[in-house]
This record gives sequence, structure tokens and C-alpha cells, in this order.
Amino acid sequence: MRIMVINPNSSQEMTASIRGVLERVKRSDTELTVVRTVGAPAAIQSASNIAQAVPPMLELVRKANKEGYNAVILACFSDPGLEAAREQSEILVMGIEETALHVAAMLGHKYTILTPLSKRIPSKEQDVRRFKAESAMASVRALDLTVTETESNPELTKARILEVARKAVEEDGAEVIVLGCAGMTGYANDVEQQLGVVVLDPTTVTLKVCEGLIDAGLRHCKRALYAAPLR
Amino acid sequence: MRIMVINPNSSQEMTASIRGVLERVKRSDTELTVVRTVGAPAAIQSASNIAQAVPPMLELVRKANKEGYNAVILACFSDPGLEAAREQSEILVMGIEETALHVAAMLGHKYTILTPLSKRIPSKEQDVRRFKAESAMASVRALDLTVTETESNPELTKARILEVARKAVEEDGAEVIVLGCAGMTGYANDVEQQLGVVVLDPTTVTLKVCEGLIDAGLRHCKRALYAAPLR
Amino acid sequence: MRIMVINPNSSQEMTASIRGVLERVKRSDTELTVVRTVGAPAAIQSASNIAQAVPPMLELVRKANKEGYNAVILACFSDPGLEAAREQSEILVMGIEETALHVAAMLGHKYTILTPLSKRIPSKEQDVRRFKAESAMASVRALDLTVTETESNPELTKARILEVARKAVEEDGAEVIVLGCAGMTGYANDVEQQLGVVVLDPTTVTLKVCEGLIDAGLRHCKRALYAAPLR
Amino acid sequence: MRIMVINPNSSQEMTASIRGVLERVKRSDTELTVVRTVGAPAAIQSASNIAQAVPPMLELVRKANKEGYNAVILACFSDPGLEAAREQSEILVMGIEETALHVAAMLGHKYTILTPLSKRIPSKEQDVRRFKAESAMASVRALDLTVTETESNPELTKARILEVARKAVEEDGAEVIVLGCAGMTGYANDVEQQLGVVVLDPTTVTLKVCEGLIDAGLRHCKRALYAAPLR
Amino acid sequence: MRIMVINPNSSQEMTASIRGVLERVKRSDTELTVVRTVGAPAAIQSASNIAQAVPPMLELVRKANKEGYNAVILACFSDPGLEAAREQSEILVMGIEETALHVAAMLGHKYTILTPLSKRIPSKEQDVRRFKAESAMASVRALDLTVTETESNPELTKARILEVARKAVEEDGAEVIVLGCAGMTGYANDVEQQLGVVVLDPTTVTLKVCEGLIDAGLRHCKRALYAAPLR
Amino acid sequence: MRIMVINPNSSQEMTASIRGVLERVKRSDTELTVVRTVGAPAAIQSASNIAQAVPPMLELVRKANKEGYNAVILACFSDPGLEAAREQSEILVMGIEETALHVAAMLGHKYTILTPLSKRIPSKEQDVRRFKAESAMASVRALDLTVTETESNPELTKARILEVARKAVEEDGAEVIVLGCAGMTGYANDVEQQLGVVVLDPTTVTLKVCEGLIDAGLRHCKRALYAAPLR
Repeated sequence: MRIMVINPNSSQEMTASIRGVLERVKRSDTELTVVRTVGAPAAIQSASNIAQAVPPMLELVRKANKEGYNAVILACFSDPGLEAAREQSEILVMGIEETALHVAAMLGHKYTILTPLSKRIPSKEQDVRRFKAESAMASVRALDLTVTETESNPELTKARILEVARKAVEEDGAEVIVLGCAGMTGYANDVEQQLGVVVLDPTTVTLKVCEGLIDAGLRHCKRALYAAPLR
Repeated sequence: MRIMVINPNSSQEMTASIRGVLERVKRSDTELTVVRTVGAPAAIQSASNIAQAVPPMLELVRKANKEGYNAVILACFSDPGLEAAREQSEILVMGIEETALHVAAMLGHKYTILTPLSKRIPSKEQDVRRFKAESAMASVRALDLTVTETESNPELTKARILEVARKAVEEDGAEVIVLGCAGMTGYANDVEQQLGVVVLDPTTVTLKVCEGLIDAGLRHCKRALYAAPLR
Repeated sequence: MRIMVINPNSSQEMTASIRGVLERVKRSDTELTVVRTVGAPAAIQSASNIAQAVPPMLELVRKANKEGYNAVILACFSDPGLEAAREQSEILVMGIEETALHVAAMLGHKYTILTPLSKRIPSKEQDVRRFKAESAMASVRALDLTVTETESNPELTKARILEVARKAVEEDGAEVIVLGCAGMTGYANDVEQQLGVVVLDPTTVTLKVCEGLIDAGLRHCKRALYAAPLR
Repeated sequence: MRIMVINPNSSQEMTASIRGVLERVKRSDTELTVVRTVGAPAAIQSASNIAQAVPPMLELVRKANKEGYNAVILACFSDPGLEAAREQSEILVMGIEETALHVAAMLGHKYTILTPLSKRIPSKEQDVRRFKAESAMASVRALDLTVTETESNPELTKARILEVARKAVEEDGAEVIVLGCAGMTGYANDVEQQLGVVVLDPTTVTLKVCEGLIDAGLRHCKRALYAAPLR
Repeated sequence: MRIMVINPNSSQEMTASIRGVLERVKRSDTELTVVRTVGAPAAIQSASNIAQAVPPMLELVRKANKEGYNAVILACFSDPGLEAAREQSEILVMGIEETALHVAAMLGHKYTILTPLSKRIPSKEQDVRRFKAESAMASVRALDLTVTETESNPELTKARILEVARKAVEEDGAEVIVLGCAGMTGYANDVEQQLGVVVLDPTTVTLKVCEGLIDAGLRHCKRALYAAPLR
Repeated sequence: MRIMVINPNSSQEMTASIRGVLERVKRSDTELTVVRTVGAPAAIQSASNIAQAVPPMLELVRKANKEGYNAVILACFSDPGLEAAREQSEILVMGIEETALHVAAMLGHKYTILTPLSKRIPSKEQDVRRFKAESAMASVRALDLTVTETESNPELTKARILEVARKAVEEDGAEVIVLGCAGMTGYANDVEQQLGVVVLDPTTVTLKVCEGLIDAGLRHCKRALYAAPLR
């Protein structure tokens, strides 16, 4: 099967990083094309960034449809333009936030999303409602680290992730931690081992669920919410 | 006070129609600039249309900020890009759907949104949750009329609005009817008189609330959900 | 337009204070009559107080109807007898709590109500549900100050308001602070400037929304919840 | 034990009817005083009626406290003034709507309230939220009969109750029917036998729960929501 | 009336303790049979324990039906097998958790459940939803004491209960404390007196409500959720 | 990978049928062991059936753990004993109802569960809350066919499934239909083609998601809700 993974931002480094993670976990019969979105911002950190990223991203979605892919994955933890992408697509489109939240709801009592900056907590809470996953949400918590700090100081990042995840577990009752940012992926094992909870890397889990849904012949419903736009 | 009313689509007719309605209800000390969004689709009927409309619309929002307006109103009943517009704006930005739903919640027990096509019902229900107004929602109901039918056949349109609004009142318990499309505005009085319920024209009610909030010196919070994007 | 603002308690001082605040923000074409409720308690701090205040207050509502007012505002942050007042009235009746909560829901992600005494927190939470505004509520928090302390010690009051509002912002994620008591009005600007969030004075915001709804020809629905009582 | 049952309206007939029902189901060691509320309306059918009834009703609550009763029951299916009554009372105060809804939630999957007039449906739905019993609510349905019709035409009344209860069971999934009006009490057995669901007479079930709570030494919490009013 | 109280575990000591508590509060015309469940675990602390306990417990339920009892009470604060027991029973079956939660919802604004171990908090939260009582829930809090500590160290236990209940009251707004474990029963008065809130012993309150419902001729609905299994 | 699929009932025919369906959709590197539960009822149609089925089913779960399986799937659309099975298991355990509901929530606006008998609707609604998937639920609808009719009359069954699914789509707004019974599996394609919505066979979709989660190294959290029982 062929899956196009679209990184909705234009960063080559992040695209390479996503490719690296997914190549390790994909099935041998899965062919991945991981692309960045030329014309999008280098990072998606606001609704304004999303507005800029979606139009060129939709072109990639249409390209995937024309070129015979089996599915598209939007690899940014805010699922930018997921609804529009599904409208434009006859093949399955999955978002990594939506998928991660519903898998999280299955694997423990409640989940917490970790997000880099506290000012993005409200938009994550809005997403939780957008994906109808609020009954299983324990909390959204922020690391309060800039992207620069995350990249330049891995020890600090690791310590902060552990500290915040521990609060999520002890104060909010989280049993699943959803890593709401690509930069956190590498620390999943540490959190799992030290806190004894499930830690989800949204990109990985989405690819694996996507492979399964393709096998099962499933895609999103095209009747109303994701119906093709009128001409 | 000066308010820029942005029609997020590119239709000159609809822009003129909005201007006509608002000029009749505005305060004498209010100066309105009603503009269409060049580069946007002629109508907003899908998430794809929204994706296309938002980038040029945001330019208008920035223009309103630079030119000393007191507020911006987004005059399309899906509040396209409202979050991004508020991020981009230091002046108050209001959406006509959000405002209408909260005023509706104040004026009766529950409200029903009328929308033209049944395939848009799910996206309206999503908007109701996006604006945290679901506890006062009775239902979303569709006229099942195309825009062409609406424009070419006013008798049919009026009859259908009355029929659907009556079902909302009698079967869903609606006390307020929110007219979820510019084409329905002219029929508000008929519904009010025949059914004895409140009928809201979202554009009108938003302008009037907006004038009040400007007087009160209020705007949206810029701390987190609508914080200015990082550079 | 003529608006009767009813202070549901019998305090002349508080009535004068409300009059002072509203005269400054009203439109020039708005004529205000601000009245106290003779026969009501001097302050409304319990359901028992409300029970005592409502019958004489309803007489004022009927008076406003007879004397050709355009609307009535109930100026006490518990909206005592709002439902009964709307039953009794053919003209628009607005409550300052209901209005403030719905405007708060529009201007930020979530709101916190500040209330003087912690023992009134449950009744505020009940009101939030009564007005169907719970999805946007961050919290209700108390100053733990008596009215006497509030009046005699403005420095303490200001410090306490700032301290509690800061907790609401930092711990509960509030982006809008609703000042749930007339005595807090004067400190709104300090909170706004120090915390960078929106602060609502319910009386002010209600007057401004009320003026707008009168212009728009709106009132509450008289069909069921607020239907005139049977004879 | 001594229980004062207060009929919050002034009708002698209805008071006698309540007394008749309760005398048959009370324990032999229970001494009932069933009183009407002089000064209240003859029937409670609106928020305005409630406003009028509560002040004289509260005097009876205080009387019950002074005269050594063990508990007070408010015997009107809208629990008028329940919160104020509990503030005024050191002894247990129970409302028949609150009690019936919570017992209904225990005896089947969901419950439906039958109410005489459709215009009261919204206020019943508000009460369901006031008592935090909405998760177990199937619906509120109206008989669309006036009190006069109910009294003068028992065959019609019985037929209508059966018809509406059947719809509640078959269309809304109700397993418990709550008879939301004194005039419906006599038809409970017919509904139970013909529809195979539980039918609750709120007055009866409240007396029986009240006797039990008195035995257990319980009353409502006096800490916050029902705290004694400040002097 | 004759009530069979089933302790769903096999502990003779706990069965005797339940019998002791209930004999003191039962009505003089109530005949209690308090039995343990031979074949069940000695304590119910997990879903696995419940799975083991329910089959022999259901035999006791059928026995109560055959031997002419009026009702069955399941006396373990997780209501193990309540749905199956009601399916098997033509007589009223009550669970002490379901009953306590709904009585708690009536006696104060919100309730907190105290449970021995923090790892059981999620299953209590699940139960709150199972019984549709989540709107009145303040929190579930754990003592973090093993059963052995509870039994061997009453001073520690009492101190911990007071400490945790105080947090529930002060931080979560609880007005009713539900003692979610038989071992806590003896400390109810201390909590009530020191914190001024209502404290419920679920076993006691369930017996008293059960006596009342038997008098009223009520049982659970047998139509759907608790219908007798098909042969 | 090796997956044990446990049919929680004792029917050899149904076990063979599940095996047949899953062998066709499994990955080539997946080794399936599909077993029935000796000692369980021949069908699971009530809470009583579940109580009987769970103890022998848990033995199979323990066997799968001892024999080195990678995961267990409980293949009955009520996920009997899922919580206990997860307590007993160090390897991933998935239930087909929980998984289907969360995948359904991802593929369309709302889902409807089809269940054979209307008396089981309440227990399905309870399950929806148990799995925290209620925000995406449109409805639960019944075919009103006995198992015998389903097996003996495929034309009737197909017609009824289409009729009920159509109502779910048109009246309840469902975009995904969840086939809540093994006997409905064969009709999925007809529903998809005639109604244009997504139809989920829970057993199939669960196997495919399970394969993906095994690849990703995920299992349920063992910290609290599914912690191993104390000895």
C-alpha cells in the first residue's frame, strides 16, 4: 500500500525526522512518501499559521488522490485543515491528533496532552471538543519551553517532560500521555518507564492505525461533513 | 465609531445586500465599511471554501487594524477564520455565528439553526460546540433548497422556512430561530408573526452587539487562544 | 430609548452607584431610570433574600411595561426572578449575570466568576447551568471578603481581587474575569492591565447589549419558558 | 416522627387530596401535618406563581422548625423555593421533584416527566438541570390538557396519559414515568400495567424516602448552598 | 418486610459488621437476613474480584426471590453485578453505591467519594457515569491506606479520612462525603462535626431508602435494561 | 505476531464464523487462534450471560499470557469483562465494541449502533458511556429481529438492516453504522452502497487496529483502572 504523509509545514528537518520515525515502524509492504508543504510556514503554532498552511497542503492531498495513493496522513498535531482535506479526498485522510486522542481513550482511563507552550492550551482543548474526545480527557498541560530550548537543551526537555507528565498522572489522573509535538517523540520510553503509563507518539500510532484501516477497506464518510464541495 | 464588515466571499451582490441590511440598523454615529474578499470563492459552502477564503480575508483584517477601525465583523454564518482573525487583530473581531448563538441562548429556552442544505448540518453542529453553545441548542435543521432555488423562488423559500421553523418549534422545542444564511433574512418577520418565536438575523444582531462592546471598551482576550502569532 | 434599571435590593447607595456607572457609558439617546426595590433586603446574598426581593421587583417590571419603557435591566449579579420578570413583561428584560456570561463566552476561551464569599460559589455554579453557559466556565472563585471589608479597605480588596484573578488565569485557564459583585467594579482596569485578560463589569456590558437589542427590535421569546402566566 | 408537608399553593382541595394520598402510605409511627400556603396562588403554573408562593411558604418552614418537626416536604412538582427553604431550615427539607428524579434515575435506564401543558416543558427541563439529573432524562412530555379538562374528564385524561407515556417509552426509551402533576396520581396503576414500566408518584415516593432519611439522621448540608442567610 | 442483604464477598467478619450496623438502623417491622457470598473473594478490590463474586451472588438473589423476600440489597460499594441481579430478580434490588450517589446529589451541591486506594479512583469515576450521577460529582479521592492499615491503625485512619475529606470540601467544593468503603463507617460523625458537611454511610442510607420503596410498592423496571434474560 | 481471539460464548458455529471473517483480513504475518469459551452461554444477550461468561473467559486470557501471545481480542459486541481481562493481562487486550466506537468517531460526524433487540438499547447506551464515546453517538437502533429470524430469513434481515440504517442516517444524522452483532456482518456492503455511509464490522476493524498497536509496542495502561489485582 502507498501512503502519503504530509508534513503541513515547510521544514525540511522536521519532514526528515518524521520520515525517519515512520520508516522504522511501517510495515514492509507499506510504501511511504513523506513530503513537506512548500508555501506553508516553517512551523504551525497558531491559527494564522494553519490558515497559511492549508491551501498548499490541499494541493498535496489532491495530488495523492490523482497519483493512486491509498491514504493520506496529516502529520502535525493540530490536524490543520483535516475537514477540508477529507472533502477534497476520495481516499482515506487521517489526522494524527484525532487518531491519537481516540487510541488514547482506548488504552487507559483518561489522557493528558503535552503541548510546548501554555498559550496553546486553549486551542488544544478546542481540538479535543472538535474530535469529540472530551469525556476521556484528563488535562492539557504545557512544558513552557520554546522550540529553540527544546532543540538546544535535551536534558532540560527530558526533565520537563517527566515533570509535567508526572503532574498529569498524579494530579489529573492521566493514564495515557499524548506527546503533542514532534520534538517530544524521543522521550517516550523514559516517561513510560518512570511513570508506568502509556505514552503515545501520535505520528507512529496514526500510521499503524492507517495501515489497518486501508486493509479493512475503510475511509471517512463522504455523505455530509466531508462531502465533496459543490462546483 | 468605524466598523469594517468583511464578507468573506467575493460576491458583490451579497456584499451589497449585507450593506443594505446593516445601513438600516446601524447607529447614526457608526461608520460602516462593508467589503467583499477578493480572491475568496463566490460562496462559502464547505471547509474547502473556508480554506480558500481565509488568507485574503486576513489581509482585510490587518488592513482594518492599520487604518484605525474600531472593530471587524466577519459576516458569514460559519465564522470562517475567526480564530486566526483574532490572532491578527488588536481591535475587536466578532463573528456573526458565535454572536447569534449566544444572543439566542439569552432570549429563549433553546434555539434552532436553519441552514440551506442538509449536508451542512454536521458542520453547524461542530460550530455549536466550537462556540460552546451546545447546552442551549435545540437542533440544526435544513431547508433542502439550493441557493439557486432560494433566489429564484421566494414563495417556495418562504414556505419552506416556515415549515422547517415550525418543526423546530413543535418537535425540538426551539424558542429562537437563527437564520443561518444571508438568503433567509427577508423572511424573519413572517416567521416571528406566524410562530410566535424570536427570529435572529445574525448579521444585524452582531452589528448591534458590536457597537455596544466598542462603547464598553471591550475586545477579545489576547492572552492565549487569540494571542498574536510568534514571529 | 428608555430603559428601567432595577436594583433588586433596597440600598440607596448601591442604586446611586449603579446609576453613576451607567450614566457614564450609556448612549446619548438612552434615557435611564435607575430604581431601587423598596421592600427588598438591603443586599441580595442568599436564596432567601431573593425570595423576599422578587415580589416588589415584579411590581417595578409591570410599572416599566405600563409606562412605555423599551426594556428592563435587573442589576444584581444573581438575576433574581429573571424568569418571572420575563413572564410579566412584554418588553425586553435582561439580567446582568446571564448577559455577562454569554458575552464572556465570546471574548475568550473560558471565564471565571469572582464572587465575594466562598459559600456562594455553589449558587453561582448553579446559575452557570441555569444560563446554559457551563461549557465556557473555567471556575468560580471567591475573594473571602465581607462586604464591610470590601467597603472599608480598598487596598486589601484590590490586592485580593488581583490575587484571585491571577489564580483563575494561571490555574484554571480563564481568559475573561467576570466581576460578580458591584463592589468590584472599580478595580477592572487594574486586573486587565496586570493580567492581560478581559474583565467584564456585568452592569455595563448588559446596558450596552441591551441598547443594541432594542435597536434590533428584539425581546425574549414569550412562547413557553417566559409565557405570560395564565389568569 | 413528625413531618410537615407544605402544599405551596392555597388550594384546600389539593391539600386535602395530598393528605389523603399520604395518609395511606405513611408509616404508623409518622405523624403528618399537611398544610396549604395561605397567601399563595391557588395553583403554581409559572415562575410568577412561584415568586408569590415562596414568601408565605417560608413562614411555614420556619414554623416547622420552631415546633419541633423532623422534616418538611414541599409538595408541588416544581420544588418552589427549595433552596430558600433549606437555608431557613435546620431540619431536613425535601422537594418532591428533586426526590422523584433521583429515585427515577435509580429504577430504570431513563425517565420521562409528564407535565400538563407544553408551555411548561422548558421550565421542567431547567429543573432537571437544577437538580443535576439530566444524564438520566429521556424527555419531558406534555398532556396538552388544562387543569379543568383534567378534572372534568377523567376518561380523556387517562387516555391521554397512556398515549403520552407510551410515546415516552417507545420513542424516547423511558423506563420510568414521573407523574409531574398531582392530578395524574390516580392513573399510575393503569400506566404500569399497560406499559410495563415504573410509574412514580412524586409525593408518595418523597414521603417514603424522607421517613428513611430521618431515621438515618440525615439532613441537607448547611455549609454553602443552603447555608443560613447572613443577618 | 423481609430484606436480604448480600455481602458480595465471603468475609464473615465484614458480614457481621454490616449486620451490626444495619440492625441498629432498621425499622422494627423489618426483618433482615445478612449473608456473605460463599465462593466469592474475601474482598472486592478489582474487576477480577467482581467477576468471581457475581455468579455465586446471583444464586443468592434467586434464592431471595424464591423465598419470598421483599427486596435485596447488594452491600459492597461497587455494586458488583447490579444489572445482572436486577435481571434475575422480580423483587427490588438496590446497590449501595447507586443509592448513595443519588441521595448525595439531593443533600448538597456536590459530593466526593472517599476510596481506600488511589488506583481505584478511575473505577469509581466509571461507576459515577454508570449511575448517571456525574453532574453532582465533585471528586473521587483516595486515603492511600491498605485495608490492613485501616484495620490496625484507627488513629491514622481517622486522621487520614479527616484530611482527605477536608481537601474535598475546601478544594473540590464537596458538601457531601460518601464513605466508599465499609472500613470508614465508624468515622462519619467526626467528619460531620469537624467539617460541617453531610457524611453518608452507603449501607445505612440504602437500607432506609429500600424500606421506603418497598412501602411504596416500587421496584426496578423490568422492561429493557433489567429485563429477564431470554431462555 | 500471535493474537488470541476469544469468542466469549460457547458457540462453535459463531466461533467458526469469526475465524472465517478474520482469516480473510488478517496480515500474512499474523497468526490467529480463535477460541470459544467453554462454560459460557451459547450467546451473550444479557448482563446475566456476561456474568456467566467472564470467569471461563478470564482463564483463556491468562492462557494467552502464559503461551506468549502478543494480544487478546474479545470478540463479542458488549466487550464482556474487558476491564477484568485487562487486569489479568500483561499483553494488550482489545474489545470490539470499544474499538469500533472510537474508529467510528474518527470516520464521520456521528455513528449509530445497530443492535438486534430493542430491549438491549439501554445496555448499548450504557456501553457508549462506559467507553466515553457519547459525544459522537447519533443513536442506538434495534432491528427487532430474533437471532432465529436473522439466521433463517436473510432477505428479511437485509431489508430490516437497510431500513433501520436509513432511519439512522436520515433521522439521527449518522454517518457511520456500527454493526452491533455478528449476524449482521454479511450485509455491510449493501448498506454502504445504498446509503453512502461507512459501515463498520467491529471484529474486522478491531483485528486491524490490534495488529497496528502491536507493531507500535502499545498495550493498555496497567497503572490504575487495569492494574493487576492485589494478591
